[in-house]
Amino acid sequence: MSTTSDRPAGRPRTIDPDAVSLVALRLFDEQGFDAVSMDDVAAAAGVSRRSLFRLFPNKAALVWGGLDEFAERFRGALRNRPADEPSSEALRAAYRIGATFPDDAVEVTRHRLRVIRANPSLEHVGAATVSGLTDEIVRFVADRDGVTTDDLTVTVRAHALAAGASAALTWWALHGEGHPEAVVDRALALLA
Amino acid sequence: MSTTSDRPAGRPRTIDPDAVSLVALRLFDEQGFDAVSMDDVAAAAGVSRRSLFRLFPNKAALVWGGLDEFAERFRGALRNRPADEPSSEALRAAYRIGATFPDDAVEVTRHRLRVIRANPSLEHVGAATVSGLTDEIVRFVADRDGVTTDDLTVTVRAHALAAGASAALTWWALHGEGHPEAVVDRALALLA
Repeated sequence: MSTTSDRPAGRPRTIDPDAVSLVALRLFDEQGFDAVSMDDVAAAAGVSRRSLFRLFPNKAALVWGGLDEFAERFRGALRNRPADEPSSEALRAAYRIGATFPDDAVEVTRHRLRVIRANPSLEHVGAATVSGLTDEIVRFVADRDGVTTDDLTVTVRAHALAAGASAALTWWALHGEGHPEAVVDRALALLA
Repeated sequence: MSTTSDRPAGRPRTIDPDAVSLVALRLFDEQGFDAVSMDDVAAAAGVSRRSLFRLFPNKAALVWGGLDEFAERFRGALRNRPADEPSSEALRAAYRIGATFPDDAVEVTRHRLRVIRANPSLEHVGAATVSGLTDEIVRFVADRDGVTTDDLTVTVRAHALAAGASAALTWWALHGEGHPEAVVDRALALLA
């Protein structure tokens, strides 16, 4: 088994998952998610089918890869906001930081959001992460504002904020130019 | 085939889908969605497995049955609002009307919302209906306010409103008493 199709003997190769995602998301965005197969992705990315499946078990995994990095930036920012900052300002700042994607992730993020928007059935893949983030917002606001997580106002505001920020990101992917953080910031100002 | 297990010969029986849903949603809510099988539902509802599957192809279908009726009430209300009413007031009124469930649907609605909340993976079943409703809100507001459906403000507000209303319904199912429409109305006042 020393000469597999994807790795000539004696020439180990490291495959960059980000590069593979970008190729896949470009294809999904341009040709339609359902019209592109894992084989198409492997061919376009220049990797074997086996290597592709090792990195991404299915097409949906190729789509949702970047959500965790957004969530990590958002969470880190929220933890580091000054303790005396009003919760609404802290959330707006954390969303702006979360939505500040590294330069080399902007294009893939745009394709990703467009593909998710065009295929509502994909949304369930990220549903657990999204609802986990919303629950964290509820806990953050409740803690900072001295109310319980069962408070109606906190719950409704957190869900509205999360949905508004997500809609702003999608709007940017469809209509916006440049980077998305300014659009997200404008959106949250609307909901303040 | 005149004597099937569920229908003795000469005694045709009409099965009420609403009654079956209520039995199923009580079980899902009390014992956990994953712990209850279609066989359990059939036995508790006193119908045959075959009759149950004819009405509901799977457990998720038992959960999402009532969403369409909410959406129909909401849409009907929106169509009937006076043409000169500001869009935000029309939406608030339509949500209040949509959330006014008939007396005999209140208990099943509470169980339904609790089951969906406890099982985020179920959310994708209703995702298409929910995102369809949100798109309709965008069109309604754009039309009434004289802007395009590509407007950032309209898009963000519509998503925030839909998410806030949905969060209010879920809050009612977990913590509220009586009927849900007052809770939804309070939530939308927060976002106005």
